[in-house]
Amino acid sequence: MDEVTIQYRIPLSRKDLRSPVMIEGLPGIGHVGKLVAEHLIRELSAETCAEVHSFYFPPHAIIGEDGVIRLANNEISLYRGEDRDYLFITGDYQSGENIGHYVLADAFVNLAADLGVTRIYTLGGFGVGHLVEEPRVLAAVNRADLREGVEAAGAFFHRDEPAGGIVGAAGLIPGFAAIKGIEGVCLMGETSGYLVDPKSAASLLKVLSALTGLVADPTRLHERGAEMERALQRLIEGQQASQDEELRYIG
Amino acid sequence: MDEVTIQYRIPLSRKDLRSPVMIEGLPGIGHVGKLVAEHLIRELSAETCAEVHSFYFPPHAIIGEDGVIRLANNEISLYRGEDRDYLFITGDYQSGENIGHYVLADAFVNLAADLGVTRIYTLGGFGVGHLVEEPRVLAAVNRADLREGVEAAGAFFHRDEPAGGIVGAAGLIPGFAAIKGIEGVCLMGETSGYLVDPKSAASLLKVLSALTGLVADPTRLHERGAEMERALQRLIEGQQASQDEELRYIG
Amino acid sequence: MDEVTIQYRIPLSRKDLRSPVMIEGLPGIGHVGKLVAEHLIRELSAETCAEVHSFYFPPHAIIGEDGVIRLANNEISLYRGEDRDYLFITGDYQSGENIGHYVLADAFVNLAADLGVTRIYTLGGFGVGHLVEEPRVLAAVNRADLREGVEAAGAFFHRDEPAGGIVGAAGLIPGFAAIKGIEGVCLMGETSGYLVDPKSAASLLKVLSALTGLVADPTRLHERGAEMERALQRLIEGQQASQDEELRYIG
Amino acid sequence: MDEVTIQYRIPLSRKDLRSPVMIEGLPGIGHVGKLVAEHLIRELSAETCAEVHSFYFPPHAIIGEDGVIRLANNEISLYRGEDRDYLFITGDYQSGENIGHYVLADAFVNLAADLGVTRIYTLGGFGVGHLVEEPRVLAAVNRADLREGVEAAGAFFHRDEPAGGIVGAAGLIPGFAAIKGIEGVCLMGETSGYLVDPKSAASLLKVLSALTGLVADPTRLHERGAEMERALQRLIEGQQASQDEELRYIG
Repeated sequence: MDEVTIQYRIPLSRKDLRSPVMIEGLPGIGHVGKLVAEHLIRELSAETCAEVHSFYFPPHAIIGEDGVIRLANNEISLYRGEDRDYLFITGDYQSGENIGHYVLADAFVNLAADLGVTRIYTLGGFGVGHLVEEPRVLAAVNRADLREGVEAAGAFFHRDEPAGGIVGAAGLIPGFAAIKGIEGVCLMGETSGYLVDPKSAASLLKVLSALTGLVADPTRLHERGAEMERALQRLIEGQQASQDEELRYIG
Repeated sequence: MDEVTIQYRIPLSRKDLRSPVMIEGLPGIGHVGKLVAEHLIRELSAETCAEVHSFYFPPHAIIGEDGVIRLANNEISLYRGEDRDYLFITGDYQSGENIGHYVLADAFVNLAADLGVTRIYTLGGFGVGHLVEEPRVLAAVNRADLREGVEAAGAFFHRDEPAGGIVGAAGLIPGFAAIKGIEGVCLMGETSGYLVDPKSAASLLKVLSALTGLVADPTRLHERGAEMERALQRLIEGQQASQDEELRYIG
Repeated sequence: MDEVTIQYRIPLSRKDLRSPVMIEGLPGIGHVGKLVAEHLIRELSAETCAEVHSFYFPPHAIIGEDGVIRLANNEISLYRGEDRDYLFITGDYQSGENIGHYVLADAFVNLAADLGVTRIYTLGGFGVGHLVEEPRVLAAVNRADLREGVEAAGAFFHRDEPAGGIVGAAGLIPGFAAIKGIEGVCLMGETSGYLVDPKSAASLLKVLSALTGLVADPTRLHERGAEMERALQRLIEGQQASQDEELRYIG
Repeated sequence: MDEVTIQYRIPLSRKDLRSPVMIEGLPGIGHVGKLVAEHLIRELSAETCAEVHSFYFPPHAIIGEDGVIRLANNEISLYRGEDRDYLFITGDYQSGENIGHYVLADAFVNLAADLGVTRIYTLGGFGVGHLVEEPRVLAAVNRADLREGVEAAGAFFHRDEPAGGIVGAAGLIPGFAAIKGIEGVCLMGETSGYLVDPKSAASLLKVLSALTGLVADPTRLHERGAEMERALQRLIEGQQASQDEELRYIG
């Protein structure tokens, strides 16, 4: 296996795809991006085409509810829309190492270029540290002429935000995309940052729908958010417990 | 030397092995897996065929009781059973780096594929944070149809456990094995997580025996556990002492 | 993309350059080096010829004031002087990893050798921990015979300083340059180390002008220093906020 | 440049060397090994033949007393004895990363094998945490039959020491050497671990002299130890100061 391996269940090739758009929603602040991407994948019955494995993910295997173990991964899912195709990237983790963030973002943008993707949306949260009644959607684009359309869809731009830049996939993917001549739009839902935030996801979904034409009933977002929060809590508690023990034994 | 080097004392090749099964028991929670693997190796007089060295092990050389120094390693031992062969993997350490866990697990599964291994057992502990009177054996499998046989052998499955996933070799090896089409079974003995746990190892051994037909008198497990605990305590104390000093001098 | 990628907007080749001199001013103590390099780039209207991307930079994308996102980078700018050409290296970050400091310094010196650069100046700060009324400029050279000229330009040498060696690009670039037979001069302005320091930058600029003949009105140094300090404060606050949140969610 | 680069001032080749012995004395506990190696190099007027650079050293350039900057390095020096030749390895640092310890030790042993080295001595300290009136010399060997000769030279072996194994070059080099069929002897002078320890170095020198026939007047060991302690103190203070400042600015 290499640092990043894409393993196809269903082959993807440029000539079978119609002007594909890529939508990335990996774990991050408030899990907002992951929640929107998974919601769309399920509501639209997008099909999982490939698994991405990487040495840069945390070295934990994942146990499914049926006791089946698998490597942590990212998944690429395909939804064939009316006029064009959509590729979703979501998954268990982002890289656990600084360099891995670059390696993985580079791999995803190379894949996008190979498949003829013309635009990539990256979805994330924008942590404000307090509860937000009506979460807005902050945006950034990788080419100045994209800004107008994104504002028209309901997102806002703020010259000072996010002040620390955008960490991980949501920022690096549009950055790499610019180099390859692919349009990149980063959408970040305002969120407290403390919990999985389905309200912020609903705001983000609205903007993304206006931009892509992808429509999905938001009703089940809250239910999915609550599930995700429970799973996350278990994961965090389980890892802390096992790390305390590992410290003494492994390497 | 490469990141991982397998150095053979006795050559191993696919055509000399009869339907080999691989059993991994490296250091981990409660040292349960290592204890079971080493116990079987000694009781069955399995023969050490190869040493595995890696840049990802902690950079400590090991001193034997006779003052002979050697690199930290993992070892591959062979037991020729009546009908089939068994390859054990055990050793001083797991990787000291996140990426190294992937690199080493990948290397072991590649070796298994090269040698025609059809099933891999990984052995570990499942830390519960308190003493356990009658330790159970938690299992995970890398293919749903393996579950029934593993339950019949006395292990249990729990949809929520381990909540944090399985860290290191015990989880990643079955994960990689699935990709190569090799059956993978992870067995984890319940243990407090605070001490080397021969009682948990005895439970684990029983399940493993039921699954593999390998039989070993458990009598000396306690004695071996006590030895391992003493060696571990010395190692930890020695490393803490030398790290305190190193901090000032190296690098 | 490789570990380090140089992406040219305007091709640079040895035969188009007249005895080029390289001047590095990346972020560091008191931002003194970066301030001087950016000041010269703007005052002299040097042209940005290339962007340097690296997996070793922190994994943050940068948002411009217009909401346009880009990868963190270093930039190479060209100023065509009367008799010779000057290449400036400045940028958002130095490496975020120890090894990356070596990889990037090596890449810059290889570029210098390819382009026929005969001398490299690296600019930095020399932290003294207290405010300095009249900041001096401490120097180091990569060949003993360079010392006299550097002293004549107003810098001083001190056998014991900096006691901890020179960390990062300012030290490693002259070190690599020596191996390639390129002259290297490191100039470090005295600074408290707590704030972006335009006063120290003004001292450094004076010495650099004496050495290179490059002249720039220092008037706007203070204004640029204040801007840089504000941007830095926002960056640091934003990163701390987002890291607190990321900890829970990413990898 | 590669991860490890050996740059020759004076070419070394197997056919010009008479049964060469390698002696490694890099920084470590109590600087005992470095002190002995540097003392021998100066007393015997060994000649520096090569510099070793590595991306794994800490990213600090070193300033000589004359203001000349150079990359941190390790050096290989040659002493032509009456009957055979001696190659010394000493230098500024060991690796600053776990993996780098392996990479560098592997490189040194490969060099030894290329040059026909038949035996390697690694020199270090053995920290006991309290002042030692008459420091003994603890040894480890990489082949059981070497033990007798080492004991006859005045070193002792202790089945439990060092309990934490031997960290870094002093342990890994004999470990790699065993794999290449080169004899390896690790000698560790007892030392408190808190200060550069010329008394421990004198004990170590005595054992090494008995083993190699290399004789050097120990008189200047104390003076050299005091110099080294002063240099080390300045280095540590300088690095702490600059790291405090760097934290805010670099990466």
